[in-house]
Amino acid sequence: MSDEKSFHMTSDEFRRHGHAVVDWIADYRDRIESFPVLSQVKPGEVRAALPASAPLHGEPFAALLKDVEKIILPGVTHWQSPNFFAYFPSNNSAPSILGDLLSSGLGVQGMLWSTSPACTELETHVLDWLVPMLGLPEKFLSSSTGGGVMQDTASSAVLCALLAGRERATSFTSNEKGCDGRLIAYASTQTHSSLEKAAMITGIGRTNLRLIEVDKDFAMRPAALARQIETDKSAGLIPCFVCATVGTTSSNAIDPVPQIGRICRQHNLWLHVDAAMSGTAALCPEFRHIHNGVELVDSYCFNPHKWMFTNFDCNCFWVADRKALIRTLSIQPEYLRNQATESGAVIDYRDWHIQLGRRFRALKLWFVIRHYGVEGLQYHIHRHVQLARQFADWVKNDDRFKLAAPVPLNLVCFRHKGGDAVNQTIMECLNHSGDLYLTHTKLDGKLTLRLCVGQTNTQERHVERAWRRIREEAEKAAGLA
Amino acid sequence: MSDEKSFHMTSDEFRRHGHAVVDWIADYRDRIESFPVLSQVKPGEVRAALPASAPLHGEPFAALLKDVEKIILPGVTHWQSPNFFAYFPSNNSAPSILGDLLSSGLGVQGMLWSTSPACTELETHVLDWLVPMLGLPEKFLSSSTGGGVMQDTASSAVLCALLAGRERATSFTSNEKGCDGRLIAYASTQTHSSLEKAAMITGIGRTNLRLIEVDKDFAMRPAALARQIETDKSAGLIPCFVCATVGTTSSNAIDPVPQIGRICRQHNLWLHVDAAMSGTAALCPEFRHIHNGVELVDSYCFNPHKWMFTNFDCNCFWVADRKALIRTLSIQPEYLRNQATESGAVIDYRDWHIQLGRRFRALKLWFVIRHYGVEGLQYHIHRHVQLARQFADWVKNDDRFKLAAPVPLNLVCFRHKGGDAVNQTIMECLNHSGDLYLTHTKLDGKLTLRLCVGQTNTQERHVERAWRRIREEAEKAAGLA
Repeated sequence: MSDEKSFHMTSDEFRRHGHAVVDWIADYRDRIESFPVLSQVKPGEVRAALPASAPLHGEPFAALLKDVEKIILPGVTHWQSPNFFAYFPSNNSAPSILGDLLSSGLGVQGMLWSTSPACTELETHVLDWLVPMLGLPEKFLSSSTGGGVMQDTASSAVLCALLAGRERATSFTSNEKGCDGRLIAYASTQTHSSLEKAAMITGIGRTNLRLIEVDKDFAMRPAALARQIETDKSAGLIPCFVCATVGTTSSNAIDPVPQIGRICRQHNLWLHVDAAMSGTAALCPEFRHIHNGVELVDSYCFNPHKWMFTNFDCNCFWVADRKALIRTLSIQPEYLRNQATESGAVIDYRDWHIQLGRRFRALKLWFVIRHYGVEGLQYHIHRHVQLARQFADWVKNDDRFKLAAPVPLNLVCFRHKGGDAVNQTIMECLNHSGDLYLTHTKLDGKLTLRLCVGQTNTQERHVERAWRRIREEAEKAAGLA
Repeated sequence: MSDEKSFHMTSDEFRRHGHAVVDWIADYRDRIESFPVLSQVKPGEVRAALPASAPLHGEPFAALLKDVEKIILPGVTHWQSPNFFAYFPSNNSAPSILGDLLSSGLGVQGMLWSTSPACTELETHVLDWLVPMLGLPEKFLSSSTGGGVMQDTASSAVLCALLAGRERATSFTSNEKGCDGRLIAYASTQTHSSLEKAAMITGIGRTNLRLIEVDKDFAMRPAALARQIETDKSAGLIPCFVCATVGTTSSNAIDPVPQIGRICRQHNLWLHVDAAMSGTAALCPEFRHIHNGVELVDSYCFNPHKWMFTNFDCNCFWVADRKALIRTLSIQPEYLRNQATESGAVIDYRDWHIQLGRRFRALKLWFVIRHYGVEGLQYHIHRHVQLARQFADWVKNDDRFKLAAPVPLNLVCFRHKGGDAVNQTIMECLNHSGDLYLTHTKLDGKLTLRLCVGQTNTQERHVERAWRRIREEAEKAAGLA
């Protein structure tokens, strides 16, 4: 074996540098509470520290790690800090990081079953595991008429669902002939903006997305949905798709899926359930009621990369009728033909999503489930909800604050009674302090603070400190107002 | 600090298991040539080795690694084997794996500048570095009117480009009102199937994608494109988009971008260049001519995850007019509003692609460029092309074989003169032997073998052995025929 000249890292160097990176990450996780949660850099500050052009000659690995510490780290907003309460979480865990590392090391591209059977089969298998774990209907199992697939994000999942709904409603002709501007989709005013984007992308058009009114708890009003569908049908339009949300982004509202499901059945509309964050709660029997009615839906997704300790990106998407999805998304060029595909005995996941290529995402999720076991996952999810409810109690019992929405799970929407400006000031001061990070929404037209308990390592002491810091900043802000 | 009960891996465990995973990957890379390149498992074999339901209790990490070795590895098709010559490569490298590991460890979600400024700024910076490295036009720089963004795959990039073209051609009204079935897109008969899928997704419709004929070298005929555009305009249709390919998937044909660019300028059509694999070649000055005419295009992409030693997924996508792209893909819900965005001083990449959330992909690409330096990258790319050309010479000089297309870079399309059945048998026997992996296409209606030299560690001896094995199987197959 005559080895050629090479600029590659040797095996020994890889081991040494690899151990150093693992140790760096362990150290990072150990000292994460010492950093401001929200990065405090100014626009352009990171770039200003980087050379204007790429190096001509290779650099030693130590120089790279040093720059990660010196240049990158100050520009990081620490999503893995236990003091991260913003948006929805995007938590991870040690077993997930290691599963992801194995995926990078194997470097397989699983577009077809044959291009790495284990990539496809482990994914199908883990998604089948999750069906009973989450109390989802049996029709989602790969042994039934449906099946699951991992997507990058809930945005991509709802896009695929909308496309399948569009195709089914037009007898699978829109793919061929294009849209005609008469297709109508439905969701509530509280639905995630990714559906609006999907309506734009699919050629359905934003004006053909009906945003149905919500009740006082911000959940969709089924009667209003039914009325709107009737109105559109009478006008000669073609209703094709409804998105219900289990845990809206603004306030964690849970749309009444059983009622919505019956309406969709009646009109033969594709019903998708977006449970991006809250679906994880169904791991615990005491919260599994959030999946009531899911036996009526055509597709469903949740994101283990939000609350289930699995690295971004990891969205799990199931359909009740895999044939409809595949018919919507399949293309068959000669250079991808192969015996396994033509035998019909395998799944080729490239026909289940937008992209052609795909990573071996199932490894990290498999590692998470096996490391924690169902019991460990349930424990931590239950604990997060407990902590959120405890926080909600503190808010409720403080005269200066009020809850702005029900707290079904781990998101607390609340506001200081001093009005929008006071709440804005509280939020900005907290985030600027670096002690914690939370974000806002608007409910009933009013600025509302959101505190979501979902970071892997968030414990009681972090939530207690958050509440103390919120009250401190509130006192200052109210004093100024 | 009172620590609560927890099922999490401790810091010490993470270090220990992390080192073990790094070592496992190093060992895997060291012994990769001992595995059959194409996995030899049968459908269902991997799943049959897995328990039917998820474990109730957590398992020790050693059990996970053992199952990776015993159950997963036999089901892996080894994309990182130097004997992988199939499809286009999806190569990786040690520095890329470590950059990706850091990204997993940091676990940031960079949808907005503020949610991790370094994630956005490093990405913009590295994409600016690549503009002169690849001889791309200055208008792609973030300091000009354009800019670059990392997408997952070229499928997503062409989808974004098509959407921007659709919107620009309809004065940005299709997003609002939906498509009307009169929009027309153009590409050659050799264009990647992802554009066909994008035409379906966007509501433009597959029948409104015109596949323009190619010349004897499988490159688009500009005159045919011009004629088709005129015909469509005369029929009252709305041409909106052209995709040119630099290195088609079937045969690595290079469409004449200068001529196509002039036609698109004349008709004000969005021109996208898909250089998914071959773009990497432009790192070498001697191959930079493949980017002739790119100053005329509206968008361009290539995949460092194919040939530039960077882990899948990593697509680099540039536009000349970032405002058109952002206007096409932006949505603005209240819960994503923040001061940095509203100041206009920052890039929010969620407005540059389909998904909302995004990983810190720039780290791995930054690591690759810094580890190899421009010099190291050029060396290895140049060497791959040399090896492919050497292989092409062997084919040319063997009476039993012939080249089926020109060999501009690292892909050799060839066939045995014995006809389709012989070529099919040669391919199946080779792939079944596990010694190497190659795939096929059809050119001029004939089954054609494709050998692509692009795996990181492919050296002369691997290509030599491939040629020897091909001739051995050819002799057997021709004897049978």
